[in-house]
Amino acid sequence: MQSLARLKGFKELTRIEDALKLFFKRVKPHKLESELIPVQKAYGRVTAEDIIAEVNLPRFNRSAVDGYAVRAEDTFEASPYQPKQLRIIEKGEISRGEAKPIWTGQPLPKGADAVIMIEHTKKVGENEIAVLRAAAKWHNVSMMGEDVKEGEIAVKAGVRLKPQHLGLLAALGVEQIKVTRKPKVAILATGDELIELGAEASENKIIETNRLVISWLCRELGAEPLDLGIVGDNEVAIREKILEGIEKADVVITTGGTSVGKADLVPLALQNIDSSSIVVHGIAMRPAMPTALAVINGKPVIVLSGNPVAAMIGFEVFARPLILKMLGTDELRPRLKAKLTRKVAGVLGRKVFLRVKVYERSGEFYAEPIRTTGSGVFTTMTRANGYVVIPESREGLEENEIVTVHIFDNVPVLGGE
Amino acid sequence: MQSLARLKGFKELTRIEDALKLFFKRVKPHKLESELIPVQKAYGRVTAEDIIAEVNLPRFNRSAVDGYAVRAEDTFEASPYQPKQLRIIEKGEISRGEAKPIWTGQPLPKGADAVIMIEHTKKVGENEIAVLRAAAKWHNVSMMGEDVKEGEIAVKAGVRLKPQHLGLLAALGVEQIKVTRKPKVAILATGDELIELGAEASENKIIETNRLVISWLCRELGAEPLDLGIVGDNEVAIREKILEGIEKADVVITTGGTSVGKADLVPLALQNIDSSSIVVHGIAMRPAMPTALAVINGKPVIVLSGNPVAAMIGFEVFARPLILKMLGTDELRPRLKAKLTRKVAGVLGRKVFLRVKVYERSGEFYAEPIRTTGSGVFTTMTRANGYVVIPESREGLEENEIVTVHIFDNVPVLGGE
Repeated sequence: MQSLARLKGFKELTRIEDALKLFFKRVKPHKLESELIPVQKAYGRVTAEDIIAEVNLPRFNRSAVDGYAVRAEDTFEASPYQPKQLRIIEKGEISRGEAKPIWTGQPLPKGADAVIMIEHTKKVGENEIAVLRAAAKWHNVSMMGEDVKEGEIAVKAGVRLKPQHLGLLAALGVEQIKVTRKPKVAILATGDELIELGAEASENKIIETNRLVISWLCRELGAEPLDLGIVGDNEVAIREKILEGIEKADVVITTGGTSVGKADLVPLALQNIDSSSIVVHGIAMRPAMPTALAVINGKPVIVLSGNPVAAMIGFEVFARPLILKMLGTDELRPRLKAKLTRKVAGVLGRKVFLRVKVYERSGEFYAEPIRTTGSGVFTTMTRANGYVVIPESREGLEENEIVTVHIFDNVPVLGGE
Repeated sequence: MQSLARLKGFKELTRIEDALKLFFKRVKPHKLESELIPVQKAYGRVTAEDIIAEVNLPRFNRSAVDGYAVRAEDTFEASPYQPKQLRIIEKGEISRGEAKPIWTGQPLPKGADAVIMIEHTKKVGENEIAVLRAAAKWHNVSMMGEDVKEGEIAVKAGVRLKPQHLGLLAALGVEQIKVTRKPKVAILATGDELIELGAEASENKIIETNRLVISWLCRELGAEPLDLGIVGDNEVAIREKILEGIEKADVVITTGGTSVGKADLVPLALQNIDSSSIVVHGIAMRPAMPTALAVINGKPVIVLSGNPVAAMIGFEVFARPLILKMLGTDELRPRLKAKLTRKVAGVLGRKVFLRVKVYERSGEFYAEPIRTTGSGVFTTMTRANGYVVIPESREGLEENEIVTVHIFDNVPVLGGE
């Protein structure tokens, strides 16, 4: 076992905001290149540029209802007590006193400037209807370009595409769109004590789980994870793996080897890489205090704690905004305001990421702090569905205080209702 | 063109809650069968059963920090002013007056019952340290089973798996888990006016987009869409396609052909299928009023409007809870309370799904109703990021009223904070 002699505490902790500022100043994260993909496969991708409508939507004046195309003026003063009779025509232009059957979505025939809903008419003979309501000009007509006009922006750059965006683009006849390519994130776990899931679980070994968790956190954001595997507590091996990651990916994330113990192994490996520079090491936060941020040839390296919860929180705070910048978007987690169900302690001078269980009861939201005996406790994340940030300046939060909760899992409704 | 003679308005509209109750009473939606999959691929899937921990987590008492394993009693009364000196040993059991270097995650050596953080010690010779703080018994020790105890439930049934759940399961050595299989949803679009995206866009034709939108809404929920294509306004063709869907899928969703006009074409096709029964047709809601719900041989058929926005809202209200029941979960959309920025009209006797743009400003949430000229306007969905339900009993909502918003897209922070 290596000597503990060189170990020391962090002299100074950097505030999260300052750490991010310093980090981004060095990395200059920018939107990655774009790629052209079919709109059918673009769900969850982020638009690389404004998408301009090349046609009007609707493309023509069309009926918004099932009924009769008419000339609005022919219906003026029509009412159930004083219906106006119109002659049904099946073809051609509409003239005064005529009505033509029309379905939802069909183009308005020439001469017509309104549609009467079928419910507001009565058949009064083979070829006549009685109109029971007056229609203003363009009543029940979806006007050409009413939804999107030719030349307008249909979907802005930096939008993560949801089903409704894909539908709109398809409606405009867009078959392929430019999205920002997925950032590649190389993930390395370090630690002599670690084994792979499925490996013979010998005494004293711990199953490595951070790569699995981080790879899915990456995919959730629209990034592509690249597994660099596990390396032991060997500075040379760590260095080689980090360089492999730098070569293959846009971002390198390591876990483990970054508390003040053996932990400086990853920072040490970084120090021994030419052109590498550690921007910050030691953040004024809990958990994830030993996080380090570095740059190699302009590429970002995020050095997370090996502790699973600290690794997740460190990812949330540092990797998430970095990856989103590379995607050209700045979206935020869903969040809500809730009443804290009990008093909790903070840590002066550190941002505390308090895991909470949020629920709705009788239309109000409550946040119940998860009791924890150590930041290493995995179940503080699986029992929680959100987190609250306790500011550096607060000794704690009060019972019944209204807090902003950042949501990462389903918020249930409890009790009646 | 078929005659309008048989067309009539809906005699009676059914309330959403009643429609769902009637529908579910007939369909009896139940959790589908389970399948065994590797934990690495289980993201987004829903657990089919409680997953019981077969081991303790941690598996052994281990150090939560880098430092020295000690006997707690040897440190009692230690302080920076009165440090306690301990002899460093490198191997074996710890006896009185001894300390052994230990890294985070390593098993606590025999004889030790606490760990002193490296920062709270001082090297005072080759083989001695000075302990600067007292440690209580089990201080800085992650106790065996502290996170999850052998035999406890690690993850409950009905949980949609997020990265943190996968991490926990992997940490427990779980390699394969039982998840509920994906419900298959067959999707059919009907309408003579419809063409495929990419097809020659002739005059008067509309690009069909509902299948694309609904297929992604299905995937978002963890269901597997099956495309039945487009059929024209032909009752026989519609009937055949619906039967094909019933044979191949767990749920059939159709769009179009269900207003009171040509719209009864899908209901008509359903009526002409033996063993089919329309449970409800016409819902007291806006949009999506002409939605119908049917059952064929116990399998659910959801007949949505062809209008893209009505189809999305109809899916949200009827298909979403059905699919979630089949998955054995009852999760809800993220939601929050916001202040309405202006007065809006409701419709007495109908639930109105008001699309809103929610944003955060100075720590408060505001919901701005999207102005709309017709429910057919696609951009009411792409400009919105949530919806508010206006109850049947309300003529409208007031400016500054606090409303619950159901979130379906990113909620931005606007202005200075």
